[in-house]
Amino acid sequence: MSESAYVLYPIGFLQSPLKEPGEAPMQGHEGAPDAWLEVHTSVAEGLEALAVGDEIIVITWLHQAQRDILKVHPRGDETMPLAGVFATRSPDRPNPLGLHRVMVLEIAGERLKVGPIEAIDGTPVLDIKPVLPQSADA
Amino acid sequence: MSESAYVLYPIGFLQSPLKEPGEAPMQGHEGAPDAWLEVHTSVAEGLEALAVGDEIIVITWLHQAQRDILKVHPRGDETMPLAGVFATRSPDRPNPLGLHRVMVLEIAGERLKVGPIEAIDGTPVLDIKPVLPQSADA
Repeated sequence: MSESAYVLYPIGFLQSPLKEPGEAPMQGHEGAPDAWLEVHTSVAEGLEALAVGDEIIVITWLHQAQRDILKVHPRGDETMPLAGVFATRSPDRPNPLGLHRVMVLEIAGERLKVGPIEAIDGTPVLDIKPVLPQSADA
Repeated sequence: MSESAYVLYPIGFLQSPLKEPGEAPMQGHEGAPDAWLEVHTSVAEGLEALAVGDEIIVITWLHQAQRDILKVHPRGDETMPLAGVFATRSPDRPNPLGLHRVMVLEIAGERLKVGPIEAIDGTPVLDIKPVLPQSADA
């Protein structure tokens, strides 16, 4: 790794009915519930112009992941050959960032109801970005 | 902000013909060039199973961004009303993470040629993830 390092602070966290990683589906579209994204008061101004119905990318910090793993069996399936973590969506990776494309379902002050989202309760949120309609990308 | 903090290390960096932010288009699909993503030897094993033609999300650290900005004019256009940074793709935001959906064009050892990508030369890379075909999401 390089000698550089960057320090990130959560802008908020998720409140979800999923309490344990074992309860969570692999991806949001695989039956995940909705969750509340609670934004810290100090950055809540940054939500202005977001609206119900918007599609957003929530970037999380997968706080229970292992950072020293470089190869995994995709989807935890041991019949699959080992792959590099950068070719998979495994939470285990050097910088365990999670990307979740969700819809804004409700806005209540500094809280956004979003979903479906497979991250567990208490997951820190690092950033929120709109999905760009021009490119339908991330 | 919260008292928690997370430390991230670059897994590599971009080598691009774009040398200054002023030269860069706003988004990759707006005429950006291709770039080489040079991965650090210590994590290069994590690339295994990536192939030419794959669509990936590159997560960068926008090292020239301002972190104390919560409202911006979208696309830097002062005729547009101010919006919260979380409703825009502005690089200026509390945790300046960049998301870039690109294609893998060439693989040469620990280097991936990817593009098109609007990030400037020297931009640190934090993570690489495959685009999921099931959900075409981020």
